[in-house]
Amino acid sequence: MARTAIWKTITAALTHDIATGKYAPGDRLPTEAQLAARFGVNRHTVRRAISDMNESGLTYSRRGAGVFVAQRPTDYPIGKRVRFHQNLAAAGRVPAKEVLTLETRAASAHEAAQLGLEGEAQVHVYEGLSLADEQPIAIFRSIFPAARFPDLLAALEASRSVTTALAQGGVADYTRASTRLTAKLANATQALHLRLSEGAPILRSAGINVDPEGMPVEYGVTWFAGDRVTLTLNPGD
Amino acid sequence: MARTAIWKTITAALTHDIATGKYAPGDRLPTEAQLAARFGVNRHTVRRAISDMNESGLTYSRRGAGVFVAQRPTDYPIGKRVRFHQNLAAAGRVPAKEVLTLETRAASAHEAAQLGLEGEAQVHVYEGLSLADEQPIAIFRSIFPAARFPDLLAALEASRSVTTALAQGGVADYTRASTRLTAKLANATQALHLRLSEGAPILRSAGINVDPEGMPVEYGVTWFAGDRVTLTLNPGD
Repeated sequence: MARTAIWKTITAALTHDIATGKYAPGDRLPTEAQLAARFGVNRHTVRRAISDMNESGLTYSRRGAGVFVAQRPTDYPIGKRVRFHQNLAAAGRVPAKEVLTLETRAASAHEAAQLGLEGEAQVHVYEGLSLADEQPIAIFRSIFPAARFPDLLAALEASRSVTTALAQGGVADYTRASTRLTAKLANATQALHLRLSEGAPILRSAGINVDPEGMPVEYGVTWFAGDRVTLTLNPGD
Repeated sequence: MARTAIWKTITAALTHDIATGKYAPGDRLPTEAQLAARFGVNRHTVRRAISDMNESGLTYSRRGAGVFVAQRPTDYPIGKRVRFHQNLAAAGRVPAKEVLTLETRAASAHEAAQLGLEGEAQVHVYEGLSLADEQPIAIFRSIFPAARFPDLLAALEASRSVTTALAQGGVADYTRASTRLTAKLANATQALHLRLSEGAPILRSAGINVDPEGMPVEYGVTWFAGDRVTLTLNPGD
């Protein structure tokens, strides 16, 4: 019982430090050894407190790098034009992407239907992580018709940007034709990539982007970390 | 171990019956006694199988009424005009509302800010459940400026419809000015109302509806059962 009380005291003290701005979003907390010394406890007790703060979303741990103060949830507009880089920059966050998969393969029946492809169509697959200020906020999987964009994978590899790669493929502008949103629980893989607990809330967005003629150019599914992103919708955008 | 195998067999058999259409969405399953007789097991084992199917969202139990086959997720448009009754009817579902709270009280600071109210404003509060084919799909809380709509509570009590009550208050049309979407986990109260497990995924939507002059008339928060509703968004709607 005494130990429980101690880690809760540490959680409360660090929560207060974060709330009062001593540690700002993105800051690294002192090391376990430093915190153990500050509070006069062993590292096990510090770890229990950190684990509790991570669980609540106040902080997050990066293997080998330490414990960081989490950002407030990022507002992410999902209007007519959904642009990852612009969305994050507008929210005052530093956007980045980490590539997980870049490949060309046969379309599944569902993917072919979403993109309006017939027969044995091939698609490019771009999977990765979206990061805001180095914190992962989403996993994305984008599917593109391969026949129409033969050089897309190379363009994505170079720029990591869908907007840039599609522009190089001749699509200077594209808009969101439809979006479907559901709430899910993170599975083990998603939890690992997003540095969440398994069973944490996930906002799943599936959308189709079309060129100015209305032809689908991208079928994308994004799994947002529920605690880190608020999707915002302003009709008319 | 033997018991585990038995209830899993029952789950598999009933899942097959549902998948092949023997029991359609909305149908009531046979009683525990009937299922126990069919499978030659005791009721405890049947209950374990039902509990597993409820957990996975395939079925749901209603106290005193039995076990029902769940509907496929309902598509719920969240465009410029969000109308519960029309949305559900368009999806081929029978809409209904169950009132939990109808009261007038002081606005919280957040509510006042959302509605653009100043000073010690009063608000009407309408809380309830949204049902589709008798299955709860969401909990809603709508907040209205009381000074502008003195008779709103009575109108809501009579009609249960926000659209009807606002029309009686002189607002013939209203549109959604903004929506904020997040994924959450169901707390105990939400789980109880929505007949979900605690920790099930919830899609939280917070929106402001405005009259044709742009004045806020409703600040609403809705907690959708993640497994039962897909929010759909078509720019231009």
